[in-house]
Amino acid sequence: MNDVFIAGIGSTSFGRHAGTPIEHLAVSAALEALLESTIERELIGALYLGNFISGPLNGKEVLAGIVGHRLGLSSIACTKVEGACASGGIAFRHACMMVASGQAEAAIAVGVETMTHASTKVTTAALNCAMDNENDGPSGLTFPGLFGLAWRMHAQRYGTTRDQVSAVVRKNKSNGLKNPLAQMGADLSMEEISSSIAICDPIQLFDCCPTSDGAAAVVVVSKAVASRIAKHLKHPLVQVLASVQTSGPPNIGAQMDLTSFSANVSAATKAYALAGVGPKDIDLVELHDCFSIAEIIDCEDLGLVPRGEGGHWALEGRTAVGGEIAINPSGGLLSKGHPVGATGIGQVYEVTKQLRHDHANQVRHARIGMTHNLGGAGVACTVSILKGLEAC
Amino acid sequence: MNDVFIAGIGSTSFGRHAGTPIEHLAVSAALEALLESTIERELIGALYLGNFISGPLNGKEVLAGIVGHRLGLSSIACTKVEGACASGGIAFRHACMMVASGQAEAAIAVGVETMTHASTKVTTAALNCAMDNENDGPSGLTFPGLFGLAWRMHAQRYGTTRDQVSAVVRKNKSNGLKNPLAQMGADLSMEEISSSIAICDPIQLFDCCPTSDGAAAVVVVSKAVASRIAKHLKHPLVQVLASVQTSGPPNIGAQMDLTSFSANVSAATKAYALAGVGPKDIDLVELHDCFSIAEIIDCEDLGLVPRGEGGHWALEGRTAVGGEIAINPSGGLLSKGHPVGATGIGQVYEVTKQLRHDHANQVRHARIGMTHNLGGAGVACTVSILKGLEAC
Repeated sequence: MNDVFIAGIGSTSFGRHAGTPIEHLAVSAALEALLESTIERELIGALYLGNFISGPLNGKEVLAGIVGHRLGLSSIACTKVEGACASGGIAFRHACMMVASGQAEAAIAVGVETMTHASTKVTTAALNCAMDNENDGPSGLTFPGLFGLAWRMHAQRYGTTRDQVSAVVRKNKSNGLKNPLAQMGADLSMEEISSSIAICDPIQLFDCCPTSDGAAAVVVVSKAVASRIAKHLKHPLVQVLASVQTSGPPNIGAQMDLTSFSANVSAATKAYALAGVGPKDIDLVELHDCFSIAEIIDCEDLGLVPRGEGGHWALEGRTAVGGEIAINPSGGLLSKGHPVGATGIGQVYEVTKQLRHDHANQVRHARIGMTHNLGGAGVACTVSILKGLEAC
Repeated sequence: MNDVFIAGIGSTSFGRHAGTPIEHLAVSAALEALLESTIERELIGALYLGNFISGPLNGKEVLAGIVGHRLGLSSIACTKVEGACASGGIAFRHACMMVASGQAEAAIAVGVETMTHASTKVTTAALNCAMDNENDGPSGLTFPGLFGLAWRMHAQRYGTTRDQVSAVVRKNKSNGLKNPLAQMGADLSMEEISSSIAICDPIQLFDCCPTSDGAAAVVVVSKAVASRIAKHLKHPLVQVLASVQTSGPPNIGAQMDLTSFSANVSAATKAYALAGVGPKDIDLVELHDCFSIAEIIDCEDLGLVPRGEGGHWALEGRTAVGGEIAINPSGGLLSKGHPVGATGIGQVYEVTKQLRHDHANQVRHARIGMTHNLGGAGVACTVSILKGLEAC
């Protein structure tokens, strides 16, 4: 397979963009990425758009073609991909595959979602499209319930405490304060977190990511194009060492163990093998903390933290910027926000900024970064490993 | 790129499957295709699922992962792709790309939709997700309106008559009578067609495809796998000479000419070049006759019939089975039905049966066939060219 490089990135802020049509957000992020990449539009051979619930929430589909047309990318294949909350990561992986397999010299991945205009009831119903509704539907389960169960199991097995989970929230909310794109950074005390209202015991308000609007985009290019444009770029190139997509059981009954998601483990294993690096080589990770407990499970599944010690590491500050492995320096989903289809590409945006040494909450000497995007009850997962080329 | 072969196909009937969950239909078609292919499940490296509006109509997404899990295809990448009515064709093309690029030895494409359980109002709103609603929405336009305008322009420019368009309906309804999977084959007189109720002048009831439920699936394999399994198969292999995806303007204002869809023309041009064949080599085509007039426009865009003569050819019987080019021997969308996400894969199913010389409405000596799937107002298009290997 050919080498793949990130030549341009773009992102709107994550948060409320009430009144802005979804395609406008997507086009805004995409234009920023295209402009930054300096490449001619004719080089773009494919567009992949990650989106989850624009059908139910906006009555709009074929967004890939609509966005491609507005970008002037006429006649190329424009494809929406969907894998619930992993839709953005799937779009990025497909853009990479097009270049890696030699089918395109360059490709663009765009992720977008608008959610804040809809009522909580409508949004919750739409988000539940990510469940295996035939199996988990009759139980009345929603995602806070699923992650609440996972928390209880993790606590039972490993002794994970409210304080340890609160430490994740505190870190990510604090990181978000430094990220100009973040929806709700905050300086919260452990007391404020543990006394926030109950959502689904043991999950409380600050354990949940917000509802968000937003878009992000990435332009990837072949080695030939990267070599040609390198001298025009105002930033270092970032190489995609691996971009992997896996599946896992879609419902609770099929999960062997709620303290781990099999799609996480298989994606990370494949990504490390492809990239030729191990967990200890990763300087930072943007991972899928849709709920605070998810960060603890995910960092263990990815091999970044020993099994059962995710809570300890968070409380001891070992996952903060400046710690042994910086987890979610952007603020993560908890604080940067979670415009579902955009999240996976937003993670690539954040890690790329870090590897260019151009992030507002910079991890010092960052050289290799990881993104991790998880969909549904663990049904879809993407993991990418990126390397800064002229940084460090 | 590597050669790609169709090793197995499966399909439910198209029509009403009230009460059958959408994932059951998809799994049913997929199991049929897997069984027919004789390959070990472990060889399948990717699953692509074409679906358009299961979110709005069923409250179900992540169908790719759910279906993959039920098929026992654990841990591989399972991806839903969407491009409105071209979603199925896009899924097939992506499965082919995975094998052609050497990323998988085998891949499965599944297309599925359920629509008949919803009210006409809800279904119409969902189908309108395929429009560029920001631009065409305010006009109140729906798809019968769009194709009604196209018909008027085609009639004005080329003198296309009601009788010529009725000949398309008559042929496809008649073809559907011979297809055991078809939803509404019928032996209609020209009088019955021209006196059916008005939907959106000049479009009348029999000019419109029905609302349908259904699923179809195709297993594609590499040359190495094809060589190994050939002796076990109960049917000849079919080679994929080309599978192309293009985009076009998503709204009426951006169309240069409603008597042609640019995405059709670019897809056909690329597909012929890739396949190394021309329109005269095509023995039969399954094309996107969502409305009767669409068949006339499409067959001209694909170069199968001279520009402006689509109506004449239909009336003269030159597009019937036994004519110069058999168009929609399955009955097409008009008669076989149009479960949106399944349609593009259903077309591959039909053409494969023809190239195996195993179709209930067989085109004699069929050797090369084409499929054509069009989404929205011409925003997404796929064209594939298939060749029977041991047939004729």
